Formats: sequence, C-alpha cells, structure tokens
Amino acid sequence: MGLVVQKYGGSSVADAEGIKRVAKRIVEAKKNGHQVVVVVSAMGDTTDELIDLAEQVSPMPAGREFDMLLTAGERISMALLAMAIKNLGHEAQSFTGSQAGVITDSVHNKARIIDVTPGRIRTALDEGNIAIVAGFQGVSQDKKDITTLGRGGSDTTAVALAAALNAEVCEIYTDVDGVFTADPRVVKKARKIDWISSEDMLELAASGSKVLLHRCVEYARRYDIPIHVRSSFSGLPGTWVSNEKPEKPESQGDQQVEHAIISGVAHDVSEAKITVVGVPDKPGEAAVIFRAIADAEINIDMIVQNVSAASTGLTDISFTLPKSEGRKAIDALEKAKGGIGFESLRYDDQIGKISLVGAGMKTNPGVTASFFQALSDAGVNIELISTSEIRISVVTRQDDVPGAVRAVHSAFGLDSDSDEAVVYGGTGR
Amino acid sequence: MGLVVQKYGGSSVADAEGIKRVAKRIVEAKKNGHQVVVVVSAMGDTTDELIDLAEQVSPMPAGREFDMLLTAGERISMALLAMAIKNLGHEAQSFTGSQAGVITDSVHNKARIIDVTPGRIRTALDEGNIAIVAGFQGVSQDKKDITTLGRGGSDTTAVALAAALNAEVCEIYTDVDGVFTADPRVVKKARKIDWISSEDMLELAASGSKVLLHRCVEYARRYDIPIHVRSSFSGLPGTWVSNEKPEKPESQGDQQVEHAIISGVAHDVSEAKITVVGVPDKPGEAAVIFRAIADAEINIDMIVQNVSAASTGLTDISFTLPKSEGRKAIDALEKAKGGIGFESLRYDDQIGKISLVGAGMKTNPGVTASFFQALSDAGVNIELISTSEIRISVVTRQDDVPGAVRAVHSAFGLDSDSDEAVVYGGTGR
Repeated sequence: MGLVVQKYGGSSVADAEGIKRVAKRIVEAKKNGHQVVVVVSAMGDTTDELIDLAEQVSPMPAGREFDMLLTAGERISMALLAMAIKNLGHEAQSFTGSQAGVITDSVHNKARIIDVTPGRIRTALDEGNIAIVAGFQGVSQDKKDITTLGRGGSDTTAVALAAALNAEVCEIYTDVDGVFTADPRVVKKARKIDWISSEDMLELAASGSKVLLHRCVEYARRYDIPIHVRSSFSGLPGTWVSNEKPEKPESQGDQQVEHAIISGVAHDVSEAKITVVGVPDKPGEAAVIFRAIADAEINIDMIVQNVSAASTGLTDISFTLPKSEGRKAIDALEKAKGGIGFESLRYDDQIGKISLVGAGMKTNPGVTASFFQALSDAGVNIELISTSEIRISVVTRQDDVPGAVRAVHSAFGLDSDSDEAVVYGGTGR
Repeated sequence: MGLVVQKYGGSSVADAEGIKRVAKRIVEAKKNGHQVVVVVSAMGDTTDELIDLAEQVSPMPAGREFDMLLTAGERISMALLAMAIKNLGHEAQSFTGSQAGVITDSVHNKARIIDVTPGRIRTALDEGNIAIVAGFQGVSQDKKDITTLGRGGSDTTAVALAAALNAEVCEIYTDVDGVFTADPRVVKKARKIDWISSEDMLELAASGSKVLLHRCVEYARRYDIPIHVRSSFSGLPGTWVSNEKPEKPESQGDQQVEHAIISGVAHDVSEAKITVVGVPDKPGEAAVIFRAIADAEINIDMIVQNVSAASTGLTDISFTLPKSEGRKAIDALEKAKGGIGFESLRYDDQIGKISLVGAGMKTNPGVTASFFQALSDAGVNIELISTSEIRISVVTRQDDVPGAVRAVHSAFGLDSDSDEAVVYGGTGR
C-alpha cells in the first residue's frame, strides 16, 4: 500500500457535519494501510464571504493582502479537519501551503507552482500522521510572501503534492460522481466515464467541462500521476484520468478498448465572439490585431479568418474569448485601430461552443461527417469550426447548445440506454 | 519622530466600518511623521465563532490544530486593515506572527514569547510601509509550529514588538477611554487616570482591573516601554503607564505628584474561596497542601492561616483561586487527604475582592485605617485581608462588592466631583 493524496473541495467540507463525514473517509483510507495526504479547500462560501469583506474596505484589494486574506479560509478548514480526524482516534497534523513546501512565483492571486519541497509532510507521514494541507496557496520563492494559485488552485496543489511525494494516485473528491460523457444537467442520459486519457481530459477541460481544470490535468499528465475524480458523498468509484489505461482484470473482457474512441461531448456558454470587420487583406494584419489582444493579457480561444472578397481587398477576422474579457478586448482594439485599419468591431455574447472529444478522430473522417450530420438533423446552424487531433468544436447560437449537445451525444451512441456504441476506426488505442 | 506601535482590539475592528475608521487613525500617525507598526486582534466575535466550529467537530480540540484554527482570525483582520490603509493612499503590508519574528515556546494555546526578531518588519518600515502584524500568535522555536499566546496575547505582542523595535510608545487602543480609578460600571464618579506607574498598574491588573493584563504590563515594565491606553473611538488622550512619570510641562503645575499616592480601587468577583478545616498545626502541613495545589497547576491568590485553637491543636487554612479552577483544586485536595490529614473542605464561590492600590501605602498607616473605616461605615464585613507594599485587599461577600468599592473610592477622594483629593504621606513619589 502506497501513498494517496486526497483532495476535498469546499462543498464537501461546507459545515461541521461535512468535515466529520470527510474525516471518516480519510480515516478509512488510512485503515486500509495507505499513507494519506489530504488537500482541502475553504469551507463552502468562506472565500466568497472574505472577498465580500475585502470589497467593503477597498474597491481594488491589493494582490499581496488579498492573498493573505483568502488563505485564512483553508487555514480554518484544515485545522477543523485535523481536529475531526484526531477525534476519531488517528493522528493528524495540518500544514499551510508554505509549511507544506509549495513554492510559487510572486504573481499574487494567480501564482504558479515553481517547486514543491514537502519535507515536513514526509516527516509527519513517517511519524504516522495523516497530513492535512491547505489547498490553493503557497509561498513566493523570492519574497517569502503568501500567494494563492487562482482558479482550480486546490486541485493543482493536490496533483503537485502527489507528484512530489510520488503518490500512487491523486483522488479529487467533489460533489459529482466523476467525469461524464456530457453535462448531466443538459443530457439526462450522460454516462459516467470509467477511464479517460489525460489528452482527452485536457481537451474536455479546454472545451468547457468543469469537473477538472486544464491546469491540474496538465500537471498530472506531465508527472504521470493518475487522477481519480469521485464523489465525497456517494463513495462510488469515479473516473480515472491517466496517461496509460490501467490494466485492470475487470476491464479486459469488455469492449471498452474500441468503444473509448469518443470520450464525450463538452459545451461552453461562457465565451463571446468578436469580429473585426473590414481588415485589409495583407500580410501582418492578423499579427497586429492579436498583439494588441495579447498585450492586454487576454487569452483567446478560436480564431477564424474569412476568405477575402476580391472586389474590396478586405476581410473579416473573428475570434472567441471569455465574456469577462470582452470589454477589455474591445478597448484594446479600439486603441489600436489606427495601426490596424479595420472598419468596425462586432461583439456577440449570445454564442455557445459544442466540442466532441476522442482519440484518433483526425484519422477517421466519419467522425466529423457524423458530427455535422447530427447538428444538421437538430437544425443547428454552425458559425465557426475548429479542430485538433482529438477534438472538433463548433460555435452556434447559445440557445441551440442544449439541443446540439443532446443530438451529438445520442448520434455517437453515448446515451446510457444505447444498446451499442458507435465505433469508428480500428482498434482504437 | 520615532517609531510607534499601535494595538487595536477586536471591538475596534468589529466590521468593515470599524476597519476603515482604524485605518484613518493609523494614517494620521504616519502623516505626523511616525514609523507605524500596528498589532491587530481578530474581528469582533470571529474567535468565538471559530471556537464554536471547533467544538462542533471535536469535543476536545487539540492544541496545535486549535492554534492553527484561531490564527485565521487575525489573518483576516490584518489583511483587511492593510487593504483599507492602501485604499487611503498609503503603503501597508501585513505579517503573521511568524513572519514578524514572534518566536515562542511550544506550549500551544498559551505560548510564551521567547524572542522577537522583527527583520521583515524593519525592512517594511524602512521601505516606507506601515506594518500590520497579527496579534496573539507566534511560531514555536523548535518545531516551527503556529502557536497562540492565550489571554491578552495581542497586547503582549504589541509590547514585545515595541521592545524589539525600540519604540517610543506602545499605544493600546480599546473601547474605553483609559484606566479608571475604579470600574466606571460600578462607580459612576470614577476618574480616568492620566498617568500610573507600572508597579501600581501591575497591582491593579492583579486585583481585577481588566483594561490591561498583568502579563503585558510586566513585559513593558521589564523593557521600559511606555504604554498609552486609549479609546479607538473617541481619540482623546488616555492613560499613560510607565516606570518613570513623564516630564511633561502641562503636568508640572498641578497637584498630581502628591495626589497620585492612591491610584485606584479594583475589584474582582471571579474568585472562590476554599477552606481546609481541621489541619494539624505542625510544621510542613501548609507545604503539603500547597504542593498538591501546585502539582495540579492551579494558581492561587490570597492565603490565610487561622490562629490555632490550643485545645485541639488544629487550625484552618483558607485560600482564594479562580472559580474555574475550583473543581480541580477540590479533587486534588481530596486525593491528597491521606497525606495531609484535614477534617473537611469548604468551598465558597460567593466571595468578592476589593483592593486599594497606591504607592507608599505601607509607610502611611493612615491609609489602612481609612480603608477599614470606609468598609465599616458601609456595613461591609471583612473575611480575609492581604497586603503588599502598594496594595491592600480584602475578601467580602460578593453582594457587598459594589457598595464597598463606592465607599472606598469616595473615602479616598477619588470621586470626580471631589473638591480635594485626600493625600496621605509626604511628597509621594
């Protein structure tokens, strides 16, 4: 029995009852002979309450102090969790990100992990303790200031510790049963995925699946740490995410190997589309536009350039980006208008994106054809298309998204009552 | 203009409005040319709420984790305070006890400060920052664990930092205007004391005055740090506590020098009395009794041994102690009964203590006489008496305490509308 890292999100430790329930689960793993490291988020709405307080005293809370404030949330949950475990008769010690050796850069509110030096965690484990670590936080390498890791930070803490401690698995406990073939709130027949490759999970995360964030999967993939996403409420097995499919006796007999070619359907309604209208069709124009966007530190997603109309020598360039960045992007482009020379800007936040993710898609033309056929049958108009080795995404009207997701999910035999999965290609992977 | 340490208690920073008010006061000091270090407690009821949470998950929260939990409170208040100051256009940085260099022993929940190494605070000040430090907490020297300092811990943090940074003054901001000649809730005519010696303040604190705790005054006395206790609400000058009376032009002309012989009247209703009845009157008996009490780690206050009745060879020994320790003391004595050989134990928690504090009392017999006369005139029966160089205390029925305090306060001319203070002795001090 090796070392297990477990991560519990805020909804799992929302109150004293939740903390006691989680404590029992942790003790269970310890009793099974594992060394256990637990990464915990702040309780329920604590972080939101702290943000609210900050906004009351200052309209623009400063990075360093804001991080100092927010990290109080995990400090509370981790100490309570350690107490609850001790109350069950097992030894536990809690550690801040700094104490656990989570070293970051100095970018407050969204720091990146530079190194993990878990000497104190190792010692605590060797002395028979369960180690509880505050998620979402670290200490900056140069200034020794407290930092927070931004969105998905606790998952990333868990994976980073799992890598540094050479853990068998990083278990991410959440309030859903795992990763599904589509969002169960949209597709009632969505199925839980038993195993998904890191690559496919990365594409799903990038395409709008919210169970695991891209950053945490990327970290796990790089250090080859298997992730097990599961519910802290049900106790059922969840979804395994790993670079190589685990060789388990029980999964050898079925058709999973070929069936797995399509992992799932993701959707995202958090993006907007900006169209730069009437751009002179000459070399370097796109570079100027996207330099202006990059300088404003805006991440964009899909980009499409229309074929130039020969009569005018002008073209349109469209791209998608998070709605929250829309205002900033428009401002940046207006400011750069002189250097670019476009006619006008169009902003559209009523779009949605549907993505189909699966290995070997590119080499199986039938997948793309079936995808478009399903959308066409559902009466969905396609506005933009983007593809990768293992993903195809389209942008549609936002209102069309639920119907489009259900149509694609069904067309690819992913519905839970489907007798037979539709398999493309040969042996799969 | 030198360095000032200011300490704000939980009631001063109870909500966002309080934090903004305190921030303005801090900026004021900075504008006046001081380097400013601020020690802050947790907001309002935060600590009680955290204790409540801890009790929900564990009936006996463990020391290390309990300290980790409680320190979240100051983390929140100090970060918010730094933000509020920055919002006023001044630079501020917050520091945990550990970051501020508050090194303690490893006794969780009531750690003692061993050393203060405020290198980061000094750097922050030299860079023009206001430094905000979490009160009540430190880091243990051997294990590098987070510790808390127990009751009055934030005041002690402030004085310790003032000593380590060689501050001009340690300002303790609270919700009252200073130290009074008696508790204003009991004595309406109580007067604010402008200056009191450290020795007298120590006696007042030991006798039940709650404005400053004994521990913090003791620390300030040892390192010769003047304390200025004042209100964070009114902004008025409060009470100075120092080893030597400050030479201020405005206080030279008045009668303060002689007047000051009596500092004030303190009372305490938090103690109980235990009487050990029928103790053999032979050498070593008292030692056995108080060894049993000390082994149970109980601090006692007053001790009185009755004159032995010649006929029986037995005597009674009475002592007072905090009510909260009563049960433990009775158990310890019952267990030691065989070795001591007393007849019975009497426990009385309906007592109160009244103390008169002032310099030169011992050499002015008139003080003691007037004290007893005042009590007698008020019809108060005295049960125990104890004296020191600068204090005389009596134990009475608890119900008699308010009347006794008012009588003594009036008899010594301390009432605010008193034309003339009653002065004993010569030049005073």
